[in-house]
Formats: sequence, C-alpha cells, structure tokens
Amino acid sequence: MAKDFPTREENYAQWYNDLVIKADLAENSAVRGCMVIKPYGYAIWEKMQGALDKMFKDTGHQNAYFPIFIPKSFFSKEAAHVEGFAKECAVVTHYRLKNSPDGKGVVVDEDAKLEEELIVRPTSETIIWDTYRKWIQSYRDPPLLINQWANVVRWEMRTRLFLRTTEFLWQEGHTAHETKQEAIEETEKILDIYATFAEEWMGVPVLKGTKTPNERFAGAVETYCIEALMQDGKALQAGTSHFLGQNFAKAFDVKFLSKENKLEYVWATSWGVSTRLMGALVMAHSDDFGLVLPPKLAPIQVVIVPIYRKPEQLEQISEVALKIKNSLEDKGISVKYDDRDTYKPGWKFAEYEFKGVPVRLGLGPRDLENNTIEVARRDTLEKETLQQADIESKVEHLLEQIQKNLYQKAFSYRENNTHVIDSWDEFKDVIENKGGFVLAHWDGTSETEEKIKNETKATIRTIPFGKNEAEGKCIFTGNPSKQRVVFAKAY
Amino acid sequence: MAKDFPTREENYAQWYNDLVIKADLAENSAVRGCMVIKPYGYAIWEKMQGALDKMFKDTGHQNAYFPIFIPKSFFSKEAAHVEGFAKECAVVTHYRLKNSPDGKGVVVDEDAKLEEELIVRPTSETIIWDTYRKWIQSYRDPPLLINQWANVVRWEMRTRLFLRTTEFLWQEGHTAHETKQEAIEETEKILDIYATFAEEWMGVPVLKGTKTPNERFAGAVETYCIEALMQDGKALQAGTSHFLGQNFAKAFDVKFLSKENKLEYVWATSWGVSTRLMGALVMAHSDDFGLVLPPKLAPIQVVIVPIYRKPEQLEQISEVALKIKNSLEDKGISVKYDDRDTYKPGWKFAEYEFKGVPVRLGLGPRDLENNTIEVARRDTLEKETLQQADIESKVEHLLEQIQKNLYQKAFSYRENNTHVIDSWDEFKDVIENKGGFVLAHWDGTSETEEKIKNETKATIRTIPFGKNEAEGKCIFTGNPSKQRVVFAKAY
Repeated sequence: MAKDFPTREENYAQWYNDLVIKADLAENSAVRGCMVIKPYGYAIWEKMQGALDKMFKDTGHQNAYFPIFIPKSFFSKEAAHVEGFAKECAVVTHYRLKNSPDGKGVVVDEDAKLEEELIVRPTSETIIWDTYRKWIQSYRDPPLLINQWANVVRWEMRTRLFLRTTEFLWQEGHTAHETKQEAIEETEKILDIYATFAEEWMGVPVLKGTKTPNERFAGAVETYCIEALMQDGKALQAGTSHFLGQNFAKAFDVKFLSKENKLEYVWATSWGVSTRLMGALVMAHSDDFGLVLPPKLAPIQVVIVPIYRKPEQLEQISEVALKIKNSLEDKGISVKYDDRDTYKPGWKFAEYEFKGVPVRLGLGPRDLENNTIEVARRDTLEKETLQQADIESKVEHLLEQIQKNLYQKAFSYRENNTHVIDSWDEFKDVIENKGGFVLAHWDGTSETEEKIKNETKATIRTIPFGKNEAEGKCIFTGNPSKQRVVFAKAY
Repeated sequence: MAKDFPTREENYAQWYNDLVIKADLAENSAVRGCMVIKPYGYAIWEKMQGALDKMFKDTGHQNAYFPIFIPKSFFSKEAAHVEGFAKECAVVTHYRLKNSPDGKGVVVDEDAKLEEELIVRPTSETIIWDTYRKWIQSYRDPPLLINQWANVVRWEMRTRLFLRTTEFLWQEGHTAHETKQEAIEETEKILDIYATFAEEWMGVPVLKGTKTPNERFAGAVETYCIEALMQDGKALQAGTSHFLGQNFAKAFDVKFLSKENKLEYVWATSWGVSTRLMGALVMAHSDDFGLVLPPKLAPIQVVIVPIYRKPEQLEQISEVALKIKNSLEDKGISVKYDDRDTYKPGWKFAEYEFKGVPVRLGLGPRDLENNTIEVARRDTLEKETLQQADIESKVEHLLEQIQKNLYQKAFSYRENNTHVIDSWDEFKDVIENKGGFVLAHWDGTSETEEKIKNETKATIRTIPFGKNEAEGKCIFTGNPSKQRVVFAKAY
C-alpha cells in the first residue's frame, strides 16, 4: 500500500489530493476538470445518496428527471440567474460529426449547427420552472416537492478532485408552494435534513445560517447554508437551501388559480448537495495514515484478516472467520473477509488502514486456541484482544462508538478553532496565521464585506442562526452591527 | 381522469403516446427530443434500477462514474466504433457565454473555443478503456467488473417518449478479463440477468440470442440480445450484451503482464439497458383502460379507497383502512390510502385503474358492518368481496398471481403471434398484415438480410439460442441455412 504521500502538516493540499487518488476514491480523467469516480469512492457516494434519498422521501419528496440540456435563452429569463450562472458553461453548438476530408478521424459537420445553442445544465431551475408552468394550474396542484439526482457541468478553471470539478454529481430539489410561509418552511426543513445528514452520517459538525447577499445563489431571495470546518482551518460550504421567492415563477409565468379565484404566482425553493461532500468527508476525519471513514458511510465497515503460515491454518481460521462474518452480517454490518493468499497480513493491515475501514479483526492460530480475536479501530488506531463470545455485539457497539467519536473529535476541533475577535489587527492575524472560524461583528454592507475579503481573503461564511446575537461594532468600520457573523477562508 | 385517448386498435402509436403522458410517466420537454421523466414514471424506473443493481452487485459488479464528455479524437481510435457512433451526437465547442452586445440575453463567447471538441457520451467504451489502461497492469488486476448508471445522448431525428429519445438514462457495464472464455461467460451471464429481469420483474417474455453482423454493436465481435414482442406485433430490443474481443484493448493499448510474464491484451464486454424498458413495460401489458403494471415494479401496489357519504363514516372507515394498510406494509407491500375529500370514489377508481395500480381495495359502511372489503384487480378488471380476516395474506397472494398472470398473458400472446414460415409470399403477407415474430430460414449473408429489409421492413431480430436448429433453405434465396432466425418489424 502506497505510503508515499505527505502529512497534513507538510502539505495539506497535496495530502488531500494523494489520499483521494491512492485510496481509490477518484482520479482525474482525460477530460480537463472532469473526474472518474472509482468504485470505492462511488460506493461511499451511494451510501450518501441512500441516506439522503430516504430523508427526502420520508418528508414527502419525489424524484424525477429533467433534460441535461437547457436552451440558451432560458438563462436570460431570470435576470440575476443569468449573471451568476450562464457564463462558464459547456455550450453545445452542433449535433453531428462527419468523416474528415483528409481521411483522418472526424470533424464537426458545419451543416449541423443548432439554431439555438444548448447549455449543459449548471443547475436546473430554468428548465424545471419552464416545465412547472404546465403542471401548476390551480391551488390543488402545489406543493410540488421534487428532487433530481443528476450530473451538472460548470466550467471551472482551477479544479480539485471532488471539491471543484467541471462535471459533478448532485441532487437538486425544486419545490413550488402556495404561500411564502410554506416555501420558507420547506427551505428550513431541507437545511435541517442537510445538517442532520452532515452530523449524524458524515460525523461533521456544521453551522447553520444564511448567506450575505454577496454570497447568495443567483436568483434567490435568501440562501441558507451549512458550513463545516476542515482540518487546515478552512471552511467548506457543505449544502445550500434557497428560498427563491416568486422570482422563477415570474420569470417563467407559473401562476395558479387560488381558492379565492385569483391568479397568483407560486413560491419556490431549490436546494442541493453534491459530490463535494466526498471532499468534506475525506478532509474532516482522515489522518497521516490515510482515510478515516465514519462507519455509517463506510463501504466496508469491518474487515477480517486471517494471520497464518500454513494452508491448513487458513482452513481452520476461515471456518471461525466466516462464522463471525455471518453473525456480523445478520446485524446489518458490511464485512469483508480477505483471505487472498497473494498478500501478507501486514500488507493487508496497511491497506485497510489506508482505506479507512473502521474496524479490523485479526484471527491467528493462537486466537483459535484461546477463543480470542484482535480488534483494531481505525479512528484511534487502538488494538485490543477480545473473547470471541458475543463478538457481533461488541463490534456493533464499537462501530457506534467510532461514529460518535469522529463527530466529537471534529466538534472539539471546531470549538478549538473558533475565535471570537474584536480587533482588526487580531482578525488579520488569526485569519492569516491560525485559520478557523472567526466570529466578528460586521456592519451589514457588501462594501465592507468586499474590503475585508480583498485584504484578508476571508469571506463571510454565514450569518449564523440563534447565537451571538449581541450587538456590537463592525470589526472593519466600527459601524453598528446587530450580531456576529462567521468569517473564514474557504474552499 | 382523462379517458380521451384512442384504443390500441384505433391507433396504437397514439394510444402509447397518450398513455405515457396522461398517466404521468413522462412528457416532451422544451428541448427537442429530450423528455421529462415525471415522478410516477421515475418511481417505476427506480424500481427497475433497484432490482438490476442488486443483480449486478450479487454477481460481483461495482458501480463507478466516468465523465459525460469524451474528446472527439477518442472515437476515431476504434475503427468500427466511430462508424457506428460518433456521427449523430451533441458536440460541445465552447465553454463560455457572454452578454450580448445588443444588451439582449447572452451569446457564445468566440474567445472560449475548445481546442478539441467534446462529445456528450453516446456510450462510454472509449473514455472507459482510456481509463482502464491505467488500472490494468498485471494478471492480478482483471477482472474489472464495473457498471455505471448514467445519462447518454444520441441525436435522434424522430423521437418517441422512452422508446427513442435524444437523451436517455441507462446503465452501461464495462468489464475487462484475462481470457476470451471469461469474457464470453460474462457476456452470457449478463444476458441471463437481463432475461431474468425482463421475465420475472417486468413480466415480459423474451427471446435470447445473438445479432447478425449487420445489427451488431459498433466495435463488438458478437452482440447478444433479448427481444420482446409488443401488442402491435412489433419487436422491441430490450437489452444487449456485447463481447468486444480485444478490439478496445487494442485501440486503447490496455495490456497486462500475464502469469507467464508475457504482455497480453485484455478481453472486454459491455452491456446495457435503458429507459427504453419503460416503453416496453407500458406496451407489453397496458390496455384500453390505461396502464397495467406488474406488482414488482408498481410504485403503488395497493390503493385503498374509502366509500362514504358523511364525514363520520370516513372516520370509521379510516380506522379500519389504516389497520389494513399497516398490516400490508408489514409484509413489504406499498400501499396508498386515498382519503382525499376533494374527489369522489368513482373518480379515484378511474384514476388508479388508469395508472395501473395492481390491486384496489374499496371500503364502505356496509363493509364495516359485514367485516368485508371489495378487492379489484387491474389485470383482469375482476372484483370480488372478501372477508377482511387475513386480508394481508390474500392480497399478497393476489399480487403474486397478477405478476404471474401478466407474464402468462404476454407469453401466450407471443406464442400466438410467432409464425414458422417457409414461403416468401407467406412471409411478406405475415410481416405486412399480421406482424409478430417470424421464424424463417436465412442464408447467412448480409446481402440477403438487407434485401429482405428493403422489401418488407422486417429485420433479423435475433439468431435465437437453442431452438429451430434444423437446417433448411433460405426463404429469400433458397440457399442452404443452418437454422431459423427471428424476423420482425421492430421499434
């Protein structure tokens, strides 16, 4: 197993990139900015999808699928949206290739030029709202609570695996409601789902709040977000939920006949999380020995490795190992028994450590004699020898502990790296030299936000809910501030 | 519920299209040839995905994800492939839009022209084999058993919802093997999975066999397929599994060091089914009253409709209905209780009949008195009144019966519409006036196949496995033939 990668301390960015590639999560493809998600990485993404999809469905949402192409003119219909989105994107201009006249390969057939260019969706509000116009007529039709799992393309100049790629996978929810209040409640409900998923599944604590107007989604009235802190002290936006007001309903003329027999525009939300969460997951927990995965999202939760010299030992070990495997699987735990004879136990130990398998069980001849088994946990790297009796309950309990411990560790890290700052010099120093979340007062203007960003590279990650509501003075201008906001450098 | 659509007899094509749209499965989008898959349709597709995905994983396959874009030059690397595929496709030529100089909307930024055009994948062999070159080095690396669920684009001039759309959803498996024999076994294993899925889940009997060279996948050595017969006597190819030989390994230089220390090309397969199966599902079972869905793929397997006049009756009925709903759900049956007071029972009956819900339960005041319940099955439209006692087992059994009955009905239809023909006049007559599968002798040449197609529009759907192996004389040329093949007009 490749250990030739830097520590976090040495080079955090390189550590991350090497980890993603060497642990078989993803790699760069032949197409600039597009990644290949490898089976091990995709298996984690499938677990994420499964958990989120269930939460969406449990709250009444349904999946659907809308076209990957959007007519260029659609983007111009919502003024703010076109400014924010339609610029850096993949543009389809032709629909046919032909044999090259020189006999080498194929060239674009200029006779097959589209009348109107098609954009590969960077997000689907426009095509979906164009469709909703047909689906919504009377007050009986809303709410529409629809989600789609899809690929999207945003032409990024500087890409990083999972964190920022030209093509990525995501879910995008698009809902339509009778009243403003209902739409706001939906926006908040989804934010709660995202936060629950981040904390209970990914083991990543998040701050909930709103974005400043500068950082809002193009076309939104209000953007809610969850923000997580990575181990290098940088923030990562892990999910957003937008209250869109009636902006898209007006742009696409989506009206309904109300109970009072009046034509009214519907109210909208949209919300999404993406394969970016994979980046957050890796960066939140992993260490200098490799990946660390929370049990709830680990494709393999437990690996059993036989330790033997002679083939007949393997046979005896396998008998016990498979019995344990079955009893663990009966509890819904995913187990791999690695009895390959092409690799030594030491190699396997390193491999599964590197790949972040939460629990490793080792079984040798002496264990058979003593009815014991070696149990190693990936999060703390601790090992202990336990009696085999009731091992399935012990492992089940251990997986729960690991899940909690990862969250707790990340939570402590965040607490230790959240700074309440009241002086501009200290602000600059902390942002520059320590990183982390900085809670500071801000005068509420985009101008100040912009100046702070230009001077320090820190942005306002969120105006957090429900805390720091004491008034104060803007850290930059000294003007009055209603509450502290969260500054950080960000991914 | 809209009943304003033609019968199959009156206009089969229109019947199909109306059914798909009015039953809320899919509709045409603002983008020519691209469809919107609506929640009810998508829920069926999700059930298909779930069943297939499990079968793939149970046979050792893993999911991954490869880029949506393919560099144009990749298509030229496999000679046959470029002929078959790269022509009608969506070509991305630019990566940026800019504000129009006239201030109206956005235009393509000519400064952002790609050096090499990107093709939106029509299928992914090329980009995947370009990746496999890095993944395969030694005999330890194969087999690679990888599948991807994805959207693909083929620029179709004449489109029909689900059956032929510019963008569609599918899965594409791409495997790499050490030996030819292993690759062929994989191709056949997948064909069996497809056939099992079609027959046991969709209730659609299929013929298994190979394609003629004319109908082979571009780049394949052998294409295996499953072919189904629709109610209008036309064939529908429901899935294909390709043995690719070493064609793509050679085109993309994918070699491994064998156990004998020799560099060898790997052997490949690819295989796929798509949202086209949705079209097959609709066309195989539905009738002039609407959709008919097999229980295993129905999003709602059982609907309970309360029949009442006064609100207090509803309350009593609901108590019993919810108890029955729970007991059915405990058996893993998906149940909807429709107690909306905005619609009358008769309207609801028509609605669920139209949407193909396999079993409808009706509960009225008299049923409460007598401990009875009305049970209606969608496939035969029969109704009977049963005792409520043990209703969950009765319904469970009924669902199994319906599943079997749909298959049996489709099987009988196919048997009754399969014709063994030995004269050219009769062949033309049957193809023209009766439709169905025609088993006839063929001399094995592409030339004859082409002539028959030009004269009758019938193509060879498959050279079927394991039957009709008697020798004979070609129906068109009289030349010797080794076995009968299956002719039909096709979707």
